[in-house]
Amino acid sequence: MATLYGVGVGPGDPELITLKALRVLERVPVICTPHAQKGEESIAGEIVLAVLGPERLREKEFLPLHFPMTRERAALEAAWAEAARQVVARLRAQKDVAFVTLGDPTFYSTFPYLERAVRAVDPAAKIAVIPGVNAFAACAAAGGIAVQGDERLAVVPATAAADLAPVLESFDCAVFLKAGRHLDAVRAAVESVGLSEKAHLYERCGFPGGRQGPLAAFPVADYLSLVVVKK
Amino acid sequence: MATLYGVGVGPGDPELITLKALRVLERVPVICTPHAQKGEESIAGEIVLAVLGPERLREKEFLPLHFPMTRERAALEAAWAEAARQVVARLRAQKDVAFVTLGDPTFYSTFPYLERAVRAVDPAAKIAVIPGVNAFAACAAAGGIAVQGDERLAVVPATAAADLAPVLESFDCAVFLKAGRHLDAVRAAVESVGLSEKAHLYERCGFPGGRQGPLAAFPVADYLSLVVVKK
Repeated sequence: MATLYGVGVGPGDPELITLKALRVLERVPVICTPHAQKGEESIAGEIVLAVLGPERLREKEFLPLHFPMTRERAALEAAWAEAARQVVARLRAQKDVAFVTLGDPTFYSTFPYLERAVRAVDPAAKIAVIPGVNAFAACAAAGGIAVQGDERLAVVPATAAADLAPVLESFDCAVFLKAGRHLDAVRAAVESVGLSEKAHLYERCGFPGGRQGPLAAFPVADYLSLVVVKK
Repeated sequence: MATLYGVGVGPGDPELITLKALRVLERVPVICTPHAQKGEESIAGEIVLAVLGPERLREKEFLPLHFPMTRERAALEAAWAEAARQVVARLRAQKDVAFVTLGDPTFYSTFPYLERAVRAVDPAAKIAVIPGVNAFAACAAAGGIAVQGDERLAVVPATAAADLAPVLESFDCAVFLKAGRHLDAVRAAVESVGLSEKAHLYERCGFPGGRQGPLAAFPVADYLSLVVVKK
């Protein structure tokens, strides 16, 4: 039986891919990339193009998988089921498949959804995860931030704005993911506990054109943004 | 002016080093490794030996730095100051220096202490951080665990045992670091909120001889252990 690999390609800079991830990508005949819109670029896919030479690329099947950006359960389930059907067809043809994901496959990635859908089609599917450098590590490296010693770290999607202030009070470092769409809520929470000066925003950190600075300096931000508050 | 690099070499498996970290290690003339005891092996140093060929190794100065495993502030400060003095001497001789650290330099690593001590000696020192795959990512990959969607993640050193139960109640996933010495306290916290069946221990995850399993199955565990509780 062939293997489905969930491959973390790191936070954006193609050089932050691991040797293990590169070796898997060089070896597998099929590479799947996630796409929010049909025909749209995949950021993880761009990293694959950057690290594999043109000769390697010609040998591969590139399989774009479409995952709509929606919270509508039925639409999501249908997309995952269709993706799983395509992946399992390759596995049954004895072809290893790599699904590439930005950052790390176990850290707020799309991979666990695909994994679950593949297991629903074939409970005996062989699945392996290749960990990667996550977005928070890239932002902390770029921003001179660290958690250390006895400090406590919380990582919270900014979607649950009502809960952000208590997290800020009881943790030494708070990371708010998906901050782009919830910037006002994050700002309000940070202000409510008097931590505005400690809040920094990282937009597309590690990518060309990525920006970082005090949260207060960003009236709007990209989807790929996170806010780090370090006391 | 030369540069001090804080280089994350990943969680244990030498193949989980990034291309960027490898490139820095190949290029710098000086590689520093942290040692808890004089003469003792450095785990990060072992990874360097595994990824650099013997010819590259002959070209390098290997500088072991001694950081005692103590909470005694004066002893720690003296060790960091002595390490910084040795590093700054190389930087002033125009030699780039790489300090290697297991996992990621910003995630509960020794590097920020060295960075601060170097800045105390030379406030204008050029310092760069190369992020790495952290231990939690390796454990999650090995254990089939993921945080996803709107889930909230807490990372807490197990040293503060009294605070563990509230974290377990309000987060979807809790990671207790440095669990080896505080196993009983972690177990008591997990039991107090009825989550024993969700608690898994990872000991030396990603290293040869690493073990993982239900927390209840480990009466004792190594220093390099963490407990993950995923609801």
